[in-house]
Amino acid sequence: MASPTVAELQQTIEKLREELKNEKQKIEEIKGTTKRTRITQMSSEVVDSNPYSRLMALKRMGIVDDYEKIRDFSIAVVGVGGVGSVTAEMLTRCGIGKLLLFDYDKVELANMNRLFYQPHQAGLSKVEAAEKTLREINPDVEFEVYNYNITTMDNFNHFMDRIRLGGKVKDTPVDLVLSCVDNFEARMAINTACNELGQSWFESGVSENAVSGHIQFVIPGDTSCFACAPPLVVATQTDEKTLKREGVCAASLPTTMAVVAGFLVQNVLKYLLHFGQVSYYLGYNALQDFFPTMRMKPNPHCDDTHCLRQQRLFQEREAAKPKQEFTEETEEEVVHDENEWKIELVSETTEDEAKAAEGDKPQLTEGVTVAYTKPAAQAEDSTDFVNATEMSIDDLMSQMKQL
Amino acid sequence: MASPTVAELQQTIEKLREELKNEKQKIEEIKGTTKRTRITQMSSEVVDSNPYSRLMALKRMGIVDDYEKIRDFSIAVVGVGGVGSVTAEMLTRCGIGKLLLFDYDKVELANMNRLFYQPHQAGLSKVEAAEKTLREINPDVEFEVYNYNITTMDNFNHFMDRIRLGGKVKDTPVDLVLSCVDNFEARMAINTACNELGQSWFESGVSENAVSGHIQFVIPGDTSCFACAPPLVVATQTDEKTLKREGVCAASLPTTMAVVAGFLVQNVLKYLLHFGQVSYYLGYNALQDFFPTMRMKPNPHCDDTHCLRQQRLFQEREAAKPKQEFTEETEEEVVHDENEWKIELVSETTEDEAKAAEGDKPQLTEGVTVAYTKPAAQAEDSTDFVNATEMSIDDLMSQMKQL
Repeated sequence: MASPTVAELQQTIEKLREELKNEKQKIEEIKGTTKRTRITQMSSEVVDSNPYSRLMALKRMGIVDDYEKIRDFSIAVVGVGGVGSVTAEMLTRCGIGKLLLFDYDKVELANMNRLFYQPHQAGLSKVEAAEKTLREINPDVEFEVYNYNITTMDNFNHFMDRIRLGGKVKDTPVDLVLSCVDNFEARMAINTACNELGQSWFESGVSENAVSGHIQFVIPGDTSCFACAPPLVVATQTDEKTLKREGVCAASLPTTMAVVAGFLVQNVLKYLLHFGQVSYYLGYNALQDFFPTMRMKPNPHCDDTHCLRQQRLFQEREAAKPKQEFTEETEEEVVHDENEWKIELVSETTEDEAKAAEGDKPQLTEGVTVAYTKPAAQAEDSTDFVNATEMSIDDLMSQMKQL
Repeated sequence: MASPTVAELQQTIEKLREELKNEKQKIEEIKGTTKRTRITQMSSEVVDSNPYSRLMALKRMGIVDDYEKIRDFSIAVVGVGGVGSVTAEMLTRCGIGKLLLFDYDKVELANMNRLFYQPHQAGLSKVEAAEKTLREINPDVEFEVYNYNITTMDNFNHFMDRIRLGGKVKDTPVDLVLSCVDNFEARMAINTACNELGQSWFESGVSENAVSGHIQFVIPGDTSCFACAPPLVVATQTDEKTLKREGVCAASLPTTMAVVAGFLVQNVLKYLLHFGQVSYYLGYNALQDFFPTMRMKPNPHCDDTHCLRQQRLFQEREAAKPKQEFTEETEEEVVHDENEWKIELVSETTEDEAKAAEGDKPQLTEGVTVAYTKPAAQAEDSTDFVNATEMSIDDLMSQMKQL
């Protein structure tokens, strides 16, 4: 075969240049032309190019005094699946200072019935995929991501260290931990870590039938921890992995998960930026659009010794406070300790409540339990301590009468 | 200058080929390796590659009888901003048959505090950007997108035609219209179209202070339309464009908007797939985590003549039904016509309710009104007809007592 002539080679070069131009254009098209640059200071200016204008407007609307403070906070999100990924995205779009993401799972096409991940990310680790998307959405947020299971010994110690030292200011604790995991073991690990560290955290969950969910605010020593009354949270002790092996999977809906993530981040914002009332427990029953709220005291016989220690510390702090009953009452907005309605939440949730809330109990494989249903074995020894108070019932009724 | 030698040219070719390979690899990296292909039939198989496994599990969980039916439905989403885009994404991920999207706005960086759009899409029309993302998420969904303002005469007629003929089966009506717009005029246009066509639709909205929202189900002739009692919905008659010109903008939060979108799509799913109870009105007060529900009858003196005609048609249909009071009661799950609590929603929402629900009323620019607050001018003539019934109050109370 004759070697190519100069003209032929130049033709090839022309063709390759054309192809290269096309590929580069494709990339431009995929990426779009506008790239979001970092912004040093949040501005209230009402221009199309300001990604913070609608958030800073919360100040003019009289909702938040100091929105810019959002940049000082650091939040750990454990589990970036259906609820956690949307939670992280909301916080990112709100301009949170720093996010620490923990997960050991990979993105799969089977996750596409929930928001956030896209098919082209299948195969990537969830934290890696999430970080990439979130950085593009808001490069002002600082990220730390850990692609590991927090429940193994080594990882657990590292996890504890990051909670203790992962704040926005170097070597200070994070401001909140958000549990968005899908199994009992991981919830217990978060609970153990937070009890030991005295770290406030939010628990969240959705039921296996996809039509209910909840968030719960845990302040060690002050409110019930996950070990004080686990069954109210998510009762199943089996995780997704086990279920999949058996050819069974929990149902899920993007709606329920987005509502739970919305409730979670809304209460995080209320807590961090001091507006409205933070809910200690907020449930979502999608079948009936019913939203139970409550507050539970910690269990004085809790199995977790760090919980007991936090309870003592809390009581000591309370006792040390100056005795100004009246002032305290108005300052602490959401504390009602009376139980006028004699509500005992855990012991009664078994049959009637579960049925009313979930519809008929489906035929489930072993290990799959409807959330909010209490396993019989633990039913007895919990009735004596859970002194639940339906917080908003009075407000709710007076508001309804006013309507 | 000497002309290049063959060796030099071949070197150039080598370099270009290398560059081309790199660019192609970049595209692969951006796009990822897995591409979601179309799926002819929904399967329940529990494998990582099945995007419908978690939805089909709703059948095994006893929640939905026939999930596959979702593919037969066509839904029009009007307005693909903060609420509409998330609404469209949820429906897409749920595998809805067909989506018709209407909007005339462009993506801006100022939208980045809400979910869905990404910075690189700034400058694209919202419907174009949305369609591209949604097709990638789920290529099984059919799309029709219209980049126009539905309130101009020509567009309005075309819009009506698409509602009337845009169903999954050619030339049948859509199954639902979802209003996710941010201004009064567009809501009135949707209301007018749906009253004329007898088309059921959901209204949705969030307040300008970003901390409350609602959804409302309108069945022409059966429930209150937007013209029957507009102030309960969103009172401002000024749209975003006007506000921006004045250097003012409404506040918004990704949390509130995702919760409203979640409520909206959840109730759409309940309505289409026959599970749970559809809410006629569901409010979200984020400051207090309070969720008012109610049902309103249409106004017999409504300004919209098509609403009056639909009311007559509805009454004729009701009268023609066989008189089986008892059976009907159990079939129509959510009809309670007693007003034991003498609740009159519209007339009383002005001061106390708005204050309780919204906190102190902020200092607002002219034209910006807190949602749920009734303009004084319309206060009198509405008290005589709005016979609102707090739907779930009995259920709520009995459930609370049971707890």
